[in-house]
Amino acid sequence: MVKQDRAIRTRRTILEAAAKVFEERGYQAATIAEILHTAGVTKGALYFHFESKEQLAQGVLHEQDQRFVIPDRACKLQELADVVLLHAYRLQSDPMVRAGVRLSMDQHAEGLDRSGPFLRWSAVCREMLEKAQAQGELLPHVVTSVTADVVVGTFAGVQSMSQAVSEYQDLRRRTSELLRHLFPSIAVPSVLASLDLSEPRGEAVYEEIQRLLQRQPAAAVS
Amino acid sequence: MVKQDRAIRTRRTILEAAAKVFEERGYQAATIAEILHTAGVTKGALYFHFESKEQLAQGVLHEQDQRFVIPDRACKLQELADVVLLHAYRLQSDPMVRAGVRLSMDQHAEGLDRSGPFLRWSAVCREMLEKAQAQGELLPHVVTSVTADVVVGTFAGVQSMSQAVSEYQDLRRRTSELLRHLFPSIAVPSVLASLDLSEPRGEAVYEEIQRLLQRQPAAAVS
Repeated sequence: MVKQDRAIRTRRTILEAAAKVFEERGYQAATIAEILHTAGVTKGALYFHFESKEQLAQGVLHEQDQRFVIPDRACKLQELADVVLLHAYRLQSDPMVRAGVRLSMDQHAEGLDRSGPFLRWSAVCREMLEKAQAQGELLPHVVTSVTADVVVGTFAGVQSMSQAVSEYQDLRRRTSELLRHLFPSIAVPSVLASLDLSEPRGEAVYEEIQRLLQRQPAAAVS
Repeated sequence: MVKQDRAIRTRRTILEAAAKVFEERGYQAATIAEILHTAGVTKGALYFHFESKEQLAQGVLHEQDQRFVIPDRACKLQELADVVLLHAYRLQSDPMVRAGVRLSMDQHAEGLDRSGPFLRWSAVCREMLEKAQAQGELLPHVVTSVTADVVVGTFAGVQSMSQAVSEYQDLRRRTSELLRHLFPSIAVPSVLASLDLSEPRGEAVYEEIQRLLQRQPAAAVS
């Protein structure tokens, strides 16, 4: 058990180092040597967990995908909004999330399949939209697969613009504005009027999750 | 005059080579040596036009900004839609446009100010939205500067997602779907019903511009 704990910690240390190096250098310029140096682990330990630079990048991409499980909401469109607003909040504060997003957006990352995060996120959004549809929250013309892709693609661009113009300082405002532009095209008016798409929402959801985690370390969220 | 023509042609050759190299390598990994080699011009000629790699990148970014002047439309929201749909069409076919977009989206382009294209595009959209507002095309709550940023940021992301999942094969469809999600939040219903946001629209606008250019080489579309 202790051995397994140590392996999990080492894997985590390596991924954090990889996230840092990928974020600073980009996928192409990053080297395993620099990740090794940053992580302070042995070559053997690194290759035990990851066989290649691509596997390290996929590890980071996978890690950021895992971090956005939020509590169930009665209103599924609110749940979708919460996922997006929380993601914006964490992008500002969590290097692993930032590295994952940058890898997905790195149009020069040759040999790295970047479609994964887009498609995984799209599947997550689609599932929430299908639940919303079953509950009568969506306008009749909405095609859930199309709207899911629009939500994922548009957020990707808004974060990129925010990074370029303000180093993410204005990301929470921009994300709220994005949702205010998209949701009137998908939500029935009574649901739309009940949604919280505001700028501070992402942080509030984050704190809600922290409180839940403190009460039930193993379950609830994950 | 002949001398000036030659200088313009040389500048153009260099920019096309730079576009190709930036698109293939990314900003960071691109070198002036490779751009020189691709362009087949002398070092002197290149440095006469561009002093640094950053100036070359700014040249490419500026060049793609220039390529989207479209004919005046009575309906300004249609004009905005046409700019976006035409851009999607040209992204599929024009290496200079593709290189410009990739540079703007390159989150690892250290030392390159990427905010320029976002801000210039946003200013162009805002101007069109202000005209639309003056003509009563917009819903009363629309803040033109906010909506302009949303249009620019969301399109940036949709193109990035399209590149990641299909190498731009599905970009026209995705762009049409994006506009169908955004415009209901900004257009009054009577205008919305009159808009052409369809997938083939970008190509039709492109051909319209080609016809105009053939008739009036110097004016009309400058």
